[in-house]
Amino acid sequence: MTRNPRGDLVRAPHQLAASLSADEFTSVFRGHPGGVAVITADPGTGPVALTATSVTSVSAEPPLLVFSLSSRSSAAAAISASDSVVVHLLDEHDIDLARLGATSGVDRFADTTAWARLATGEPVFPGVRAWVRCAIVNRMEAGGSTVIMALALQHHLTREAGSADGGGALVYHNRTWHRLGEHSTLS
Amino acid sequence: MTRNPRGDLVRAPHQLAASLSADEFTSVFRGHPGGVAVITADPGTGPVALTATSVTSVSAEPPLLVFSLSSRSSAAAAISASDSVVVHLLDEHDIDLARLGATSGVDRFADTTAWARLATGEPVFPGVRAWVRCAIVNRMEAGGSTVIMALALQHHLTREAGSADGGGALVYHNRTWHRLGEHSTLS
Repeated sequence: MTRNPRGDLVRAPHQLAASLSADEFTSVFRGHPGGVAVITADPGTGPVALTATSVTSVSAEPPLLVFSLSSRSSAAAAISASDSVVVHLLDEHDIDLARLGATSGVDRFADTTAWARLATGEPVFPGVRAWVRCAIVNRMEAGGSTVIMALALQHHLTREAGSADGGGALVYHNRTWHRLGEHSTLS
Repeated sequence: MTRNPRGDLVRAPHQLAASLSADEFTSVFRGHPGGVAVITADPGTGPVALTATSVTSVSAEPPLLVFSLSSRSSAAAAISASDSVVVHLLDEHDIDLARLGATSGVDRFADTTAWARLATGEPVFPGVRAWVRCAIVNRMEAGGSTVIMALALQHHLTREAGSADGGGALVYHNRTWHRLGEHSTLS
């Protein structure tokens, strides 16, 4: 390990070339839990939806969030091409929607009573714990995936986290759905 | 809502200007759970560490992950200025480290028996569920925060997710630590 005149660490190229196999990386991250969201959009070619466990908040002021999209999903390509999206933040009451958005080969909008359109045009599944309408404001390419940064424009909060009428939070971990509540609290 | 000749949605500027307050945004995301990680680095000015709930995998091939850093943390500025980091993915056995990295005003490296340096120089807390040494390969500014993209170079897996000797996964939600296991599984 050496340093350049500014003091930054400088690495030999062979160190950057070292890497993990896809299997090793997947195995490590299978054990890392994630909150569950469904992202919807309509780039002008019809509504699309997918379940994502990569949604995280980045900044409260301005209100920014990020999520990543794999290029292997056709819905992901449509969402990435959109100007705006609706990010649905789910709890245990929303497990059916989480499963729908994670199932390939089905029409996720077949049940026309389950979704609506906002006045601004985006498809929304009402009744989820919370949803946030966002404008996509930046993108970062990442191998075959894209990291999307989105600015929150409008929101609806149906259930507060931890409120008396609230459901347990929904978590995806090791290919299994989990719910949080008093039973899972670490003292 | 109108469309340009290419068919993209075009929005009036006042729609982009609409936004959520910091309080509203924080309230919505407080209910969104996250897996728990501790990120360490040494940009040449000494070791730094912080607890983050924003680590997500983005691509398995190449093995890429992202996380975000708030500018309000001095450790975050040092990590963002580094060429490489170690991302520790925690489970319930690692709760003390999670708390240490989330406590401000303490020397997170005071216990010299708790950490070591990799041959490549980065500080590491051995014994955690898994750690991944990464090169920072891209950054995206986000208000007062920075989204970091990192390429996995090396890893160590101490405990498999869901293995017999594995701890329950660690989750942060609504200002509380939770552990996952059979007790939290949704059937």
